[in-house]
Amino acid sequence: MRSPQPLINGGGETPSPRPRIQTQSPHFHSTVSVQKLRRLNTLIFVFRFCTFCFSTAASVFMLVNPRSSDSPRWYNFSAFRFVLAANAIVAVYSLFEMGASVWEISRGVTLLPEILQVWFDYGHDQVFAYLLLSASSAGTEFARTLKAGDTCTASNAFCVQSDISIALGYAGFLFLGLSSLLSGFRVVCFIINGTRFHL
Amino acid sequence: MRSPQPLINGGGETPSPRPRIQTQSPHFHSTVSVQKLRRLNTLIFVFRFCTFCFSTAASVFMLVNPRSSDSPRWYNFSAFRFVLAANAIVAVYSLFEMGASVWEISRGVTLLPEILQVWFDYGHDQVFAYLLLSASSAGTEFARTLKAGDTCTASNAFCVQSDISIALGYAGFLFLGLSSLLSGFRVVCFIINGTRFHL
Repeated sequence: MRSPQPLINGGGETPSPRPRIQTQSPHFHSTVSVQKLRRLNTLIFVFRFCTFCFSTAASVFMLVNPRSSDSPRWYNFSAFRFVLAANAIVAVYSLFEMGASVWEISRGVTLLPEILQVWFDYGHDQVFAYLLLSASSAGTEFARTLKAGDTCTASNAFCVQSDISIALGYAGFLFLGLSSLLSGFRVVCFIINGTRFHL
Repeated sequence: MRSPQPLINGGGETPSPRPRIQTQSPHFHSTVSVQKLRRLNTLIFVFRFCTFCFSTAASVFMLVNPRSSDSPRWYNFSAFRFVLAANAIVAVYSLFEMGASVWEISRGVTLLPEILQVWFDYGHDQVFAYLLLSASSAGTEFARTLKAGDTCTASNAFCVQSDISIALGYAGFLFLGLSSLLSGFRVVCFIINGTRFHL
């Protein structure tokens, strides 16, 4: 909720012409508003943390897949390379976004300028969600094809571990989609209010 | 086009208490606003038309794929069934949305109540974009696998036509994504103004 006092950031009698557009300067927000934003940011952080965990787990599961020397390798199959790459990219992105969330929760300001931050988050969430879904779908289809052949008969553990990796990728996509919803909400708040505070 | 007169829906002197929230009743909007909305709706219609064309073409290309009797059939492969189903669903949805667009452009009101219409459009655009991308990715991966085997050596035309169908599906996804952006913009306008008019 906006300040009931007329001005804090402008100082004196002359109001700033567009005080709502100022981003990094600490201007007044009520305690309720700050608490609500903190709760939203915490929720976003939780979703990002889940995305990070699942994507990292998916990458690691795929990376350490060939347990025995006669088993096929993940890097022989382009679909599994795609799964690994997409999950690794999302894991790195989620780690960065977790850092940005922690920064914002602890210091009360965004890491990048506010307008850039909200659009950066939303845009990247959308693109990476598409990327991860595309990789997981391609991986699923290829895993099905492998099962139809005799690769999985010869080394069943390889196929099972690939399946687990792909399933973890889908879970990562789910949480990335939820993050995307919340970052979309922040964009809408920013467009409406000129600030990411949603009260 | 909406009337430039200040009030029509209320009748007499008493204005409606919350005219912006009323959805289907024709209330005041400036001529510029109406023209801008009409331009936006026309752009959405063009994107939906492109989506419809590409998805329909993708479905038809996949459906009529087996030209010769010794060629494999699309329904033998689950990935191609998925491609066909996803494209057909998107084609039907786009046809419905094209109808809704034409209705809105010609009559000036939305087919469903306004709040329902903007959220319906945006939600379905998002979900169907994910669906189409997933199907196209799975189809691409399976087509690559087919090429690695000897199916494509035996009946090359089948593989080429499948590739074309999948590529058309990607084009449909592109235009559906653009529609999704514009319907997201309409949702934001609705949240801000209480109406889909963006001025």
